[in-house]
Amino acid sequence: MVIVMIHGAEEEQINAVITRVEGAGLQAHVSRGMEQTVIGVIGDKRNYPEVLGLEVMPGVEKIVPILQPFKLASRTFKKENSLVQAGKLVIGGDTIHVMAGPCAVESREQLLETARQVKEAGASILRGGAFKPRTSPYSFQGLEEKGLKLLAEAREATGLHIVTEVMDTRAVEVVKEYTDIIQVGTRNMQNFVLLKEVSNVDKPVLLKRGLSATIEEWLMAAEYIMAGGNHNVIMCERGIRSFETYTRNTLDLCAIPVVKHLSHLPVIADPSHGIGKWRFVPAMARAAIAAGADGLLIEVHTSPETAWCDGPQSLNPVKFSAMMDDLRKIAKVMGKNL
Amino acid sequence: MVIVMIHGAEEEQINAVITRVEGAGLQAHVSRGMEQTVIGVIGDKRNYPEVLGLEVMPGVEKIVPILQPFKLASRTFKKENSLVQAGKLVIGGDTIHVMAGPCAVESREQLLETARQVKEAGASILRGGAFKPRTSPYSFQGLEEKGLKLLAEAREATGLHIVTEVMDTRAVEVVKEYTDIIQVGTRNMQNFVLLKEVSNVDKPVLLKRGLSATIEEWLMAAEYIMAGGNHNVIMCERGIRSFETYTRNTLDLCAIPVVKHLSHLPVIADPSHGIGKWRFVPAMARAAIAAGADGLLIEVHTSPETAWCDGPQSLNPVKFSAMMDDLRKIAKVMGKNL
Amino acid sequence: MVIVMIHGAEEEQINAVITRVEGAGLQAHVSRGMEQTVIGVIGDKRNYPEVLGLEVMPGVEKIVPILQPFKLASRTFKKENSLVQAGKLVIGGDTIHVMAGPCAVESREQLLETARQVKEAGASILRGGAFKPRTSPYSFQGLEEKGLKLLAEAREATGLHIVTEVMDTRAVEVVKEYTDIIQVGTRNMQNFVLLKEVSNVDKPVLLKRGLSATIEEWLMAAEYIMAGGNHNVIMCERGIRSFETYTRNTLDLCAIPVVKHLSHLPVIADPSHGIGKWRFVPAMARAAIAAGADGLLIEVHTSPETAWCDGPQSLNPVKFSAMMDDLRKIAKVMGKNL
Amino acid sequence: MVIVMIHGAEEEQINAVITRVEGAGLQAHVSRGMEQTVIGVIGDKRNYPEVLGLEVMPGVEKIVPILQPFKLASRTFKKENSLVQAGKLVIGGDTIHVMAGPCAVESREQLLETARQVKEAGASILRGGAFKPRTSPYSFQGLEEKGLKLLAEAREATGLHIVTEVMDTRAVEVVKEYTDIIQVGTRNMQNFVLLKEVSNVDKPVLLKRGLSATIEEWLMAAEYIMAGGNHNVIMCERGIRSFETYTRNTLDLCAIPVVKHLSHLPVIADPSHGIGKWRFVPAMARAAIAAGADGLLIEVHTSPETAWCDGPQSLNPVKFSAMMDDLRKIAKVMGKNL
Repeated sequence: MVIVMIHGAEEEQINAVITRVEGAGLQAHVSRGMEQTVIGVIGDKRNYPEVLGLEVMPGVEKIVPILQPFKLASRTFKKENSLVQAGKLVIGGDTIHVMAGPCAVESREQLLETARQVKEAGASILRGGAFKPRTSPYSFQGLEEKGLKLLAEAREATGLHIVTEVMDTRAVEVVKEYTDIIQVGTRNMQNFVLLKEVSNVDKPVLLKRGLSATIEEWLMAAEYIMAGGNHNVIMCERGIRSFETYTRNTLDLCAIPVVKHLSHLPVIADPSHGIGKWRFVPAMARAAIAAGADGLLIEVHTSPETAWCDGPQSLNPVKFSAMMDDLRKIAKVMGKNL
Repeated sequence: MVIVMIHGAEEEQINAVITRVEGAGLQAHVSRGMEQTVIGVIGDKRNYPEVLGLEVMPGVEKIVPILQPFKLASRTFKKENSLVQAGKLVIGGDTIHVMAGPCAVESREQLLETARQVKEAGASILRGGAFKPRTSPYSFQGLEEKGLKLLAEAREATGLHIVTEVMDTRAVEVVKEYTDIIQVGTRNMQNFVLLKEVSNVDKPVLLKRGLSATIEEWLMAAEYIMAGGNHNVIMCERGIRSFETYTRNTLDLCAIPVVKHLSHLPVIADPSHGIGKWRFVPAMARAAIAAGADGLLIEVHTSPETAWCDGPQSLNPVKFSAMMDDLRKIAKVMGKNL
Repeated sequence: MVIVMIHGAEEEQINAVITRVEGAGLQAHVSRGMEQTVIGVIGDKRNYPEVLGLEVMPGVEKIVPILQPFKLASRTFKKENSLVQAGKLVIGGDTIHVMAGPCAVESREQLLETARQVKEAGASILRGGAFKPRTSPYSFQGLEEKGLKLLAEAREATGLHIVTEVMDTRAVEVVKEYTDIIQVGTRNMQNFVLLKEVSNVDKPVLLKRGLSATIEEWLMAAEYIMAGGNHNVIMCERGIRSFETYTRNTLDLCAIPVVKHLSHLPVIADPSHGIGKWRFVPAMARAAIAAGADGLLIEVHTSPETAWCDGPQSLNPVKFSAMMDDLRKIAKVMGKNL
Repeated sequence: MVIVMIHGAEEEQINAVITRVEGAGLQAHVSRGMEQTVIGVIGDKRNYPEVLGLEVMPGVEKIVPILQPFKLASRTFKKENSLVQAGKLVIGGDTIHVMAGPCAVESREQLLETARQVKEAGASILRGGAFKPRTSPYSFQGLEEKGLKLLAEAREATGLHIVTEVMDTRAVEVVKEYTDIIQVGTRNMQNFVLLKEVSNVDKPVLLKRGLSATIEEWLMAAEYIMAGGNHNVIMCERGIRSFETYTRNTLDLCAIPVVKHLSHLPVIADPSHGIGKWRFVPAMARAAIAAGADGLLIEVHTSPETAWCDGPQSLNPVKFSAMMDDLRKIAKVMGKNL
């Protein structure tokens, strides 16, 4: 970190800062410029918190952090790409995995029919919410364990793997029994208690980016899971909140090459939530693959117009299948299979 | 809601939409304009979800929601201001309550000394975190129940009431035993499981606005708590995330008169998190009162430069006391006590 | 537009609104719901401004616009894609055009050498700023007409076409003499005086999206140029401002399929400004093509580390050439040439 | 500035950077940390641009700017508050000036009647647009010079001073003849050509903050005007663009104490645009004064419901007058007159 002193900081103010820095077992490198004095702090990052309060000391203008706060999630910690094993599948390698299915598990028929169709179109993982985070308390909240059982049945019937969301620490136990990949949703990206809970589970975690989370905060959320012992984290860009209102969210595809540069973790994209209108999902899915995504999360419903949630952003199986054909060509250009 | 058909929508497409609307027990009012046909939907709002999928029907351009989705939290539901009873105090009436104290409960001495000083300066409620949501897994995570006991001891010693955060559904039970007001933090504003859990508690809930929550989403979070049976919700504006980087957040004081217009719930402001630098906290605290806030949440630390968290935005007791003097004058102009 | 009355609006308030609407030559369709009365307004959109003030009338809750405010730029106005003729080139057709070159024209040698190299790599248009919008008054402001002459010389030498920015109404005359495409920059997207000035010119206009412009506002800026008589507008997505700080901007690729849906105008992307770091430019360029972009604007400098501006986001000719090879493959998958 | 090298940067990469820094006449202070090497750059800031390209050099992770880029506008340059003389008035001193009037000059009657009424309520400056920046080319664009003449007539009739916007470099000459204060609008905050033009004028400039301008960029726009010789700049916070849609903009009152800390220039607020609904304007006006604003810009119209623009955010004279009474009390608490 760098401590910037105010213009005209007094010698004793500068010395007081140096004393605090050195007292925390860190080194202070002082650069006296024409305009301002700047103090570089070097040493064991674990001691940094002890000097963060420095910003309040007299004569201090501001503290500028320099180093990345995440460790286990960083490329510095691990140079090669992480391959995340999810059941029999590997996420992050040469094969792009498409996770497809309805927003919510609604019924046995709906789920099994969708599963069959996305399987046929080339998806390898079935998505479907049994516990649903809904903006309104009056909206459908999910079939809960009954939904999990239906997902397991669909897996049995099709051979697809399963990804489903957990929202409550108390439900982690039951969700992990059924699913292959545990999803932590956007609204829970900084639900640190939940992150700690899934850090103890031996299933991979699909970590969605928070609605207004910076890439650094997102990687820090991954760090929570990894620090607890679960290194199998799949990052999922799903659109951030911006001022634009025509689209539901703003799918930040910049995050894909950036996370792959900063981290060794695999990154997938969710264009369905990212743009929020089915019409534009194929274009964004293609773009995500071209940007380097390791996979996709796509909402598919056999009858979007009667879906209990997210119908407007769901593809029907025919459109999904056509999209998959295009994605295969882009994947090939990227040197990957799909 | 209003259904906007595409330019050139065919008659049978329009009719299909009308059929769906009427099939859901709703009325369709069709307006055929020169450019586009628009269908107004009238009827019991509880039937609306059934027609939401309409956006996917052929010939439909978009759905425009018209009515507010919140009910119990709305002024329409309750015309007069809600007075929230918190222990012996009333939030939302003629008295502005200042909740002050450290970001985190660190030790017995720190907390009791701070409590005494904020009490003397005129605060009526002591704030202090026993469970801390921290961006980094390597940061101090709170004293947990030990912290709650210290808060209770400080209440005993000073007569102050207490507000403290709960992050985990499993901790609601113990937190409610100790505190007068339960705080739901920014990062948990859409932790719907937690909202439901505190909706069953007979303690008032201080609901912080999410980092990127619209006012409507924030009121929907209050609706979750109210729908579960707990009508004692205090809204707390604490700064939203914008592109500005000089301040930690952007305290959105617009939200104060707006929430008081749309809802009957009391609204307070947290200028400490809202602007993130102690130097500017008094100005924003004054502005919040002038905008109509019913109270304030202020971080105060006996030694901000050694605070374990949020030192840069904490006032020391001397500055806090001076600020309170100024706030009293603004409160008086607003026809309130402090 | 739809006029939403407050809950409990009085009959005479509703009638007053109807009177105003009808007085403006428009029709009012009244829907009386259980909760609120809603009035749909139908008729000649040119009369709408006369009833906009309605929002202030007693009993009115809000006005909800329904129809798109842009006409000439809309797909409703023109169903087929517009092909913009720029010199001998056609933008918006089967060929993807890459516009490449330095941020600023710095010298004859720099420009000609860059021109030769981007030409060889497959670019068809040379970009280069002669008039530079710089955040600081102390930064290099461009070579002005001397820069334009160098651009013309580079065109002569290479056969490339030219695109360059105009910032001042008074400079439109001279810029149009030299350039094939006139660029209106991000910061001038709502410089309406400049938009009107270029609307009288017989050269195509490349219109960059404003830093925080919604897609609708961006299309309204195009409408300004088209309403003045110049229908040759090329839309350019170049990154919007979000809360993310790791990237310079957030390239909003969602805008590409959305603009192509709402409008008939061609759309290109500027990944150099969009992400702001050269390392990530190829990934975003590929993604833009896969999302459906009609072209790209790429910063290339023979020596990025000594560039007078935007070095960090500029590719050197070797990296640019390698990127072009990848883009060609994506373009082919998209059924286009490059 | 600080240059952060990548983890594992090689010795020769570090040396190459040092050579470049020293070659630009700057000093390099190298700190070799356990994780990364960091190079502090000290010396004449005017030489900084020459090393910005360093970010592209092999082994460089990023460049972190440390010092403020603005000089003339900074508190470092001038410690005491600037008092801006506008005709016979002083902005930035003990008197809070309220600038009130219609969005647009519509007619002689409208303007003179409004002028008389705002004068009577206590305003000292009349606002009114003669040149109007409108999102749509089909909206009323202003009365232009005829509007300026009417403003001058209103000044004659009431003794009020005048502030009006200039949008075009070619109109600066005529606008300055009529007005006491030249307004540069939000959409032109980074119209650098216009900033340079008004930097040569002997009239004070009211500089509105751009819709998505950081405080630093806003102060850099002021720097443009001051660098050209015109030190009489009044900063005007008018709301930034955020994700919130209920309010037209998000009035960022944090900017008031922050700008007054970083700069010596006076700062006023425009709550009319800032929140965009007349109902909430008085609350935000009070808050702005309480936050330390030196003045206000308020839209007042004798008949908001028939205003040609911005009716929804305009107060009528009766409400304006009532608001002024409240503001006087807040001003008094702040130790100021109004």
